[in-house]
Amino acid sequence: MQTIKVAIAGFGGVGRTTATLLLQRRERYRQVYGVDVRLVAVCGSRAGLADANGLELSQLDELQPTLSGPEFISSSGAEVLIEAGPSDFRTGGPGLAYLRAALSAGQDCIVISKGALVHSGPQLRELAQASGAILKLSGAAAAALPTLDLLEHSLAGCQVLAVEGILNATTNYLLDAMRTQGLDFAAALREARGGGFAEADTRNDTEGWDTACKLLLLANFGLGADLTMDDLEVEGIHSITAQRIDAWKSQGLVPRLIGSLTRVDGTIRASVGIKTYPLSDPFAQVNGKNKAIRISSDAMGETIAIGCGEEPLATAAAALKDFEHILLARATRPAFMVEHSA
Amino acid sequence: MQTIKVAIAGFGGVGRTTATLLLQRRERYRQVYGVDVRLVAVCGSRAGLADANGLELSQLDELQPTLSGPEFISSSGAEVLIEAGPSDFRTGGPGLAYLRAALSAGQDCIVISKGALVHSGPQLRELAQASGAILKLSGAAAAALPTLDLLEHSLAGCQVLAVEGILNATTNYLLDAMRTQGLDFAAALREARGGGFAEADTRNDTEGWDTACKLLLLANFGLGADLTMDDLEVEGIHSITAQRIDAWKSQGLVPRLIGSLTRVDGTIRASVGIKTYPLSDPFAQVNGKNKAIRISSDAMGETIAIGCGEEPLATAAAALKDFEHILLARATRPAFMVEHSA
Repeated sequence: MQTIKVAIAGFGGVGRTTATLLLQRRERYRQVYGVDVRLVAVCGSRAGLADANGLELSQLDELQPTLSGPEFISSSGAEVLIEAGPSDFRTGGPGLAYLRAALSAGQDCIVISKGALVHSGPQLRELAQASGAILKLSGAAAAALPTLDLLEHSLAGCQVLAVEGILNATTNYLLDAMRTQGLDFAAALREARGGGFAEADTRNDTEGWDTACKLLLLANFGLGADLTMDDLEVEGIHSITAQRIDAWKSQGLVPRLIGSLTRVDGTIRASVGIKTYPLSDPFAQVNGKNKAIRISSDAMGETIAIGCGEEPLATAAAALKDFEHILLARATRPAFMVEHSA
Repeated sequence: MQTIKVAIAGFGGVGRTTATLLLQRRERYRQVYGVDVRLVAVCGSRAGLADANGLELSQLDELQPTLSGPEFISSSGAEVLIEAGPSDFRTGGPGLAYLRAALSAGQDCIVISKGALVHSGPQLRELAQASGAILKLSGAAAAALPTLDLLEHSLAGCQVLAVEGILNATTNYLLDAMRTQGLDFAAALREARGGGFAEADTRNDTEGWDTACKLLLLANFGLGADLTMDDLEVEGIHSITAQRIDAWKSQGLVPRLIGSLTRVDGTIRASVGIKTYPLSDPFAQVNGKNKAIRISSDAMGETIAIGCGEEPLATAAAALKDFEHILLARATRPAFMVEHSA
């Protein structure tokens, strides 16, 4: 049986959950894909662990200091790297060095953190193309909500005309709270923090940057665009008053923070801002921490997906969906052979 | 450049649209997949045309009598068969003979009509497995709405716990008309026929059989079940009175004809019947001719897709999405190679 060696760089909540899920699914990988999957290395920013025979769940709490960094991962012999480190789109974050090294060496990469992809997406894409590595990023592009899947797989062959997405769960939760409970932004934020639905610093969410990052990934990796963050118009929800919320409510409209892609003269334009929807639109019913995407195409009309899932499990599952797609792509399958027998 | 030969059996509206779209996309197939796609044969029940060098759009109105049947398709040398004939789930319809012959010979098959798959799905699946042929059926399983895609691709690795779908556009349109216009079933049906939204004989739709057929395909091909139509409880919408519609309306509930799959003690149970949804549920907002599916899984929570698209174009596009997935699966891609260089 073929052995597939996997490493995980970035070992916070999502990285650990991904490791656990990967180990739990080893029997599935044997049965469905005929491969023996080994987790040969994991590391956070300051500690890690490696074992060429494969780590077991019980070892994951015994990380050793200094075992970290691209060379540590490279020396593990991993064929697939899952990158789940902290995300920083202004610098690329620690993921950038891991991904550059892995893709240059032809290792397939599954990316969960957005930073490196937003900062240097086209460069990483080129490194992958040059080495023949597969670069997947479902976990970074809205996790359990299928977005890139729809663009690449379900709409294969169609020309995508426009995309709009509710891509950030925190802002969607806040807008819902403002609308249904008549709160202003500050009060909704206090309420969300009290319930554990928002982090201490939510500016990345509420100013629209998280949505913008995901949108950029959809544009560059789903539609082959070549955008940088400077190309996006980004507006958040922090300046929305209770009065505006009331006015929309009286008109039967529901506000959502929307990332939009449109095709203008053959190029992709991207923007983030508030749009309102009538109650009859499925986007009006994407409540709480759900996310959604609507894709308009030439041949299939409008396709909408809505989803979320519990974190960090859903994001780990999205990354391991990418892993199965890599296993499938790497499975050698005979090319068309009927011609010879006809 | 590698040549891929395609044949189409069943040449009504969907078959013709599929042929046209396939020919329009030849340049895309060259650029994206590096293959020269030739439409080498088409046939209806009594006439057809073949050309090993590939048919052009202008020839598709010049079908010749008697060129039809599995042997005609086989002699064309096609590596991929698209089956788009009339659907009859009680007999398997004409598609059954085409599919048996093609799959036995190792030809990849893209199925648009449901009949043969409902009648003999497990047998056809076995023929494909034995010969190594790929069997795809997006066009039969709700067309532009991604259903099997979600199960196989977007939720890869997850355990599906339950599925519910609004899978038949005609009944959804009729239920909407009954609810919004206060019509009883007979009046809604007259109105739909007047507007061209329902065929002369809609019993296959309104008695739930079309939904049941699609549900069976999702169970057998998406979840690996082995159901026959006898295993399904099927209820339609024809006996719904205006009074029941009114009662639901007064409770804020929207009725939908739903195909449901649940897992009971490890086996898949399937049923078709009316379910009602509150207005806050996205299923309540799946209006007009739209279709929808909701999939609950262990690791990704609920995933909903909503879609439709103009027919017959959307169904043709769904079949050709399958075609691109076959091209991708048949493309030879190096297996994992990093290990050797590590």
